[in-house]
Amino acid sequence: MSNRYDVLGIGNAIVDVIAQCDDDFLDQESIEKGGMTLIDEGRAKQLYAAMGPAIEASGGSVANTMAGIASFGGQAAFIGKVHADQLGDVFVHDMRAVGVACDVVGADQGPATARSLILVTPDAQRSMNTFLGISSLLEPGDVDEELVAQSTLLFCEGYLWDVQSAKKAIRFAMETSIAAGNRVALSLSDTFCVDRHHDEFRSLVAGPVDTLFANRDELLRLYETDDIDEAFVQLGTEVSLGCVTMGTLGSMLIDNGEQIKIPAYEVGSVVDTTGAGDQYAAGVLHGIAKGLPLGECGRLGSLAAAEVISHVGPRPLTPLARLNISDATVDARSWVSE
Amino acid sequence: MSNRYDVLGIGNAIVDVIAQCDDDFLDQESIEKGGMTLIDEGRAKQLYAAMGPAIEASGGSVANTMAGIASFGGQAAFIGKVHADQLGDVFVHDMRAVGVACDVVGADQGPATARSLILVTPDAQRSMNTFLGISSLLEPGDVDEELVAQSTLLFCEGYLWDVQSAKKAIRFAMETSIAAGNRVALSLSDTFCVDRHHDEFRSLVAGPVDTLFANRDELLRLYETDDIDEAFVQLGTEVSLGCVTMGTLGSMLIDNGEQIKIPAYEVGSVVDTTGAGDQYAAGVLHGIAKGLPLGECGRLGSLAAAEVISHVGPRPLTPLARLNISDATVDARSWVSE
Repeated sequence: MSNRYDVLGIGNAIVDVIAQCDDDFLDQESIEKGGMTLIDEGRAKQLYAAMGPAIEASGGSVANTMAGIASFGGQAAFIGKVHADQLGDVFVHDMRAVGVACDVVGADQGPATARSLILVTPDAQRSMNTFLGISSLLEPGDVDEELVAQSTLLFCEGYLWDVQSAKKAIRFAMETSIAAGNRVALSLSDTFCVDRHHDEFRSLVAGPVDTLFANRDELLRLYETDDIDEAFVQLGTEVSLGCVTMGTLGSMLIDNGEQIKIPAYEVGSVVDTTGAGDQYAAGVLHGIAKGLPLGECGRLGSLAAAEVISHVGPRPLTPLARLNISDATVDARSWVSE
Repeated sequence: MSNRYDVLGIGNAIVDVIAQCDDDFLDQESIEKGGMTLIDEGRAKQLYAAMGPAIEASGGSVANTMAGIASFGGQAAFIGKVHADQLGDVFVHDMRAVGVACDVVGADQGPATARSLILVTPDAQRSMNTFLGISSLLEPGDVDEELVAQSTLLFCEGYLWDVQSAKKAIRFAMETSIAAGNRVALSLSDTFCVDRHHDEFRSLVAGPVDTLFANRDELLRLYETDDIDEAFVQLGTEVSLGCVTMGTLGSMLIDNGEQIKIPAYEVGSVVDTTGAGDQYAAGVLHGIAKGLPLGECGRLGSLAAAEVISHVGPRPLTPLARLNISDATVDARSWVSE
């Protein structure tokens, strides 16, 4: 391909603050397990003081995906917003260090860099509590038109619909991408996010979005059904590629209505599921940009997801380009229940 | 025991910035593998820009040990110095969150909070590059006399001898501890550190230090010998308890000259050895403070070390109090070569 970048991501620029906790702590703090809740600065301080010792790691859904694509050896770029503080430095460093083009300059005014307080329970599920900080000021002026035109795929996160000023920016970026003959991909991000922005997401999927990433529950909410097969069929009529993750069952790719089952890969010990969907998207998008057959794209997604859930943190610790699909063991449970 | 705290630690307050790298990168950057090098702010910026994506986790040798003791359920307190910046907040949060008494107030002037750029090679060894920042301003005024008197054990790190103003503080704390009838423990920290401060370390070990922590190489450097048995004997004449770690061979406790071999515990996959010695010290000191037999103290040390080397980061991710010595598998290599 003659484009400068394989994938350009636009998303929240977040540093994750990850701590272990038990289920009682989630109850005490009234945190819904497995979801993402937006919190204000006061709640962020209170929750941080209450939670256990943590590690910090750069995060943000689409940002994680871009890091994964670069880790596969792909050409990725990122647009987001940070403050000129220590966490902002950490975020930008981690993008550039893995090879993502990231020209984000930290603002010296306004709110602090976004952080997500992530609580990991013994079942390896993560519950995210996100203070968006300066990321909530993302606006059309942050979108570099030329960068969009030079990128084979544009990838946006549903979470940005929580940021009022970002919606215009994303719609503008999507139009620019399509006008340049490029592809537009969207992640539905989170079931609660689908509930909050249901009608807009429906119109995006029926409209500019060409490739959709969702997990099973998000897709069911999008189409307001309990029947996953019905949702698969409907998705097939609206996007050219649907990518639906099913946890340990693997994933389903829907290629112009045709279903391709992708197995999950076996993981010795699932430690922290943070970033699983993001890294799955990295594998699939990287494969698409490299022109690989879709089945192989899906398996790259499974491979990247398996790596990231085997340790704490939302991004690969092992360069993904070094992993080999043929070495991966298919999880025995994959599609068994189908 | 009637003291308020089991162990009071005085040490550098550092946030670790941990990245994977290959051996070529260490060569390119002229970094000696396995050691700790002090760097200035300029070098810290240059090295950070050159290194890969990282995660941040609170560190500092003695601080890690205090976190380990609290994780075992012991009463630990810490004295150190941070700036009122984001990394300073992270450091203090992580101490308090695990239950360490830490009254450190971030300074609003002076250098930034200390950080250590830690490069982990595929052999799981860590090479540390530490910018001490405000931690280099630790001074006698930071030592709370009452806190020292109320703590059964005082634990200091050899690294503090790199901080000119801290030496007086540590000598004062040691005298205060002994005058109150408490015990004084020291870690030799690092072979290069032993070389830098050889004569002072010899006089500390022959003098106020009652319990010494060292690894094999540090002990050999201290006594300027190649014969570990000779070093064990000499150590036995100078301290009432010597604790010498031997990597996969386990460790040797020297109880008033009597040798007690302690096995290492088996680890599925050694990921990052950062904090191994610190957590070994946590297990031993916790056991001593609780009045356990020395063999059991040593095994608690092995248990804590095995936990911390199985993941990235210098502090336990699993509460140590939940681990069970009897569940641990002894590493087959332990003491085999003896």
